[in-house]
Amino acid sequence: MLYLTRRETFNAAHKLHVAEWSDEENRSVFGKCSNRNWHGHNYELFVTVAGQPDPVTGFVMDAKLLSNIMKEEIVDQVDHQNFNLDVSWVPKNIQPTTENLLVLFWKQIEERVNNAGKAKLYSIRLHETENIYAEYFGPNGRK
Amino acid sequence: MLYLTRRETFNAAHKLHVAEWSDEENRSVFGKCSNRNWHGHNYELFVTVAGQPDPVTGFVMDAKLLSNIMKEEIVDQVDHQNFNLDVSWVPKNIQPTTENLLVLFWKQIEERVNNAGKAKLYSIRLHETENIYAEYFGPNGRK
Amino acid sequence: MLYLTRRETFNAAHKLHVAEWSDEENRSVFGKCSNRNWHGHNYELFVTVAGQPDPVTGFVMDAKLLSNIMKEEIVDQVDHQNFNLDVSWVPKNIQPTTENLLVLFWKQIEERVNNAGKAKLYSIRLHETENIYAEYFGPNGRK
Amino acid sequence: MLYLTRRETFNAAHKLHVAEWSDEENRSVFGKCSNRNWHGHNYELFVTVAGQPDPVTGFVMDAKLLSNIMKEEIVDQVDHQNFNLDVSWVPKNIQPTTENLLVLFWKQIEERVNNAGKAKLYSIRLHETENIYAEYFGPNGRK
Amino acid sequence: MLYLTRRETFNAAHKLHVAEWSDEENRSVFGKCSNRNWHGHNYELFVTVAGQPDPVTGFVMDAKLLSNIMKEEIVDQVDHQNFNLDVSWVPKNIQPTTENLLVLFWKQIEERVNNAGKAKLYSIRLHETENIYAEYFGPNGRK
Amino acid sequence: MLYLTRRETFNAAHKLHVAEWSDEENRSVFGKCSNRNWHGHNYELFVTVAGQPDPVTGFVMDAKLLSNIMKEEIVDQVDHQNFNLDVSWVPKNIQPTTENLLVLFWKQIEERVNNAGKAKLYSIRLHETENIYAEYFGPNGRK
Repeated sequence: MLYLTRRETFNAAHKLHVAEWSDEENRSVFGKCSNRNWHGHNYELFVTVAGQPDPVTGFVMDAKLLSNIMKEEIVDQVDHQNFNLDVSWVPKNIQPTTENLLVLFWKQIEERVNNAGKAKLYSIRLHETENIYAEYFGPNGRK
Repeated sequence: MLYLTRRETFNAAHKLHVAEWSDEENRSVFGKCSNRNWHGHNYELFVTVAGQPDPVTGFVMDAKLLSNIMKEEIVDQVDHQNFNLDVSWVPKNIQPTTENLLVLFWKQIEERVNNAGKAKLYSIRLHETENIYAEYFGPNGRK
Repeated sequence: MLYLTRRETFNAAHKLHVAEWSDEENRSVFGKCSNRNWHGHNYELFVTVAGQPDPVTGFVMDAKLLSNIMKEEIVDQVDHQNFNLDVSWVPKNIQPTTENLLVLFWKQIEERVNNAGKAKLYSIRLHETENIYAEYFGPNGRK
Repeated sequence: MLYLTRRETFNAAHKLHVAEWSDEENRSVFGKCSNRNWHGHNYELFVTVAGQPDPVTGFVMDAKLLSNIMKEEIVDQVDHQNFNLDVSWVPKNIQPTTENLLVLFWKQIEERVNNAGKAKLYSIRLHETENIYAEYFGPNGRK
Repeated sequence: MLYLTRRETFNAAHKLHVAEWSDEENRSVFGKCSNRNWHGHNYELFVTVAGQPDPVTGFVMDAKLLSNIMKEEIVDQVDHQNFNLDVSWVPKNIQPTTENLLVLFWKQIEERVNNAGKAKLYSIRLHETENIYAEYFGPNGRK
Repeated sequence: MLYLTRRETFNAAHKLHVAEWSDEENRSVFGKCSNRNWHGHNYELFVTVAGQPDPVTGFVMDAKLLSNIMKEEIVDQVDHQNFNLDVSWVPKNIQPTTENLLVLFWKQIEERVNNAGKAKLYSIRLHETENIYAEYFGPNGRK
């Protein structure tokens, strides 16, 4: 098995805010991330696929194809958008945390990545700032 | 002359949008940056002061003091805020571009930096993404 | 399972030097790292916790809380200190290598991280320079 | 188990091009990477070994020794070379993709790393650009 | 005056080799950079323009427009190419060093940048590796 | 004029401490940097030379030669050393701040750089952490 990783970047706005809570409750749980008028990040997205290199091309997966899937299914739909308001596949009743976004991103690309060839989606990592990132290995966990 | 530079970071939301223009006009000039519901960035702010090292301390300026001024006058007021809506000293009738923010940031810190000792504010650089940054040397220009 | 990682940084001094060995022996094993009067690094510390996102907050663990534990239990105690001389929980008879520090850092934070909620401490990674880092998954190993 | 990682860098040229294919076929599969007159990269190579810290030295493996093995067995043989033409242990009938290079690099260093002490070669990661990297855990896979 | 900088990246091959010299002479002057079969780099290109922010848009220059000029006049013509063989505006009798490339890049974009609006081309910086870069302020020098 | 920059790295220990002051005075001025038993940094050193590219080699200065001068005159003498105790050309009565080190580094390399060819030493930049750096343009200032 080899693991190929591709990075894409995007910028988006969000806030962390439970509608049923008071401002004080939101602030005590989410701090500045609950500020009313949003804030945003330069997100870095890393998608890793696992497979054997093709004996002719030497590719586990064409990195350009992986890039295209990431762009079409994720980046083009979230870049310069507001995760709380603008993205149809981000439910309004969940918080757009790095963790929750990863699970949603996985669903966005899993099928296309896995059907693109023999490689399988292995993990997604999302960096929110230089100090915080999260990683997800799919509903079946790290293999 | 020696030049000492300090970096601070913050996250904020903004959009570029002229209220008097139609959505089409805004989109043709500002592209995705005009999207209605904001987007945001992990900003990196670099402030440079110029001066002679103090003969005893060896400091052009105490970097901790410079950091405190940057935090109190800029970062604490813009971090996790919306540049279009939340910051009293960002006029509502200007676009919060990297360039315009630099001029406003200069005004925020110039006096305190210059009064803190013998060093003088030399330049401010603001990185909006890994691909875009701007720099300002004050109203009198690069010396 | 999702994996959330938080970065903190600190600066410290150390040397690698076995007291029972001659300078020649120390130099042959540790090279410049055995130099008598210490050297130091800008360390980067990454702590990863594993868990399920909370259904309400979307957090595996509040990154601010994780940051606070890292600061209180590690960073505040080692920043601008000498690992050989100043840190009570670094035994005098072990070398403060990246590897040994990781095991000690694990002990410092394991209990507080694991008691802070449902997430569990998963790994600690310590970068000594841009060219060297080490990672530890705890006494039970990588799961 | 602790995992120690060392980084080395090198620059090399390559192209991806199946000799039996037409230029059109090559371009449709490899894109610009098939351009006739080569292109190149600043490669970053990370080698990870796994083991217990030595009770006296605190080293899983001497990072300087690991660096020397990486340089002698890989970097000195590929730096400023053409992967398609110049490197005796890169077969002429395979594509020098990041994935295939990893498998070849593994063979180059496995024996020396594993015989250097108690630590064992765990993984090799190769970054081709800031957007693409691959990782290999050896013929027996990720443990 | 404000200074806006845009980064673009590309990969290319080159070698440093004076045709009239023996291999020994080339090697003594250029070292490994003279190796016969080329090597390559992940180049990072930074272009800086100077001007006043537009009172309405807040732009010294639209960074997207600057990016397009950089791509059309430089990146699209050199990416995945060989600087010694493939680029019509790189003379065959000069060495494609970072320094010489900068002067050629300046000529490629100066007119379009300066005609795009009120901002003027101020400097170009080219990073060849993480350890080497060069900067050029045009034929009239640093202002 | 073109400006060529070379980066080298080193690790060293230091503290900021005026011997004539009490511990309280030292702490009030230098904070944690005055801690008794030293701390240290991964320093990044950037040296810039200015000149015309040689018409034959295309070099403002051979970057390998510049690297050698930096290593022989600075890095080899300070790497894994203590700036307060170990470096003969760092006076005991000055603080080894980033600013003071720059002036000393300038003296170390100016003559060799300027005698190596037609390029002249233009500036030295020293990064102490990811958040602090200083730059020096020599006793005659920025040209």
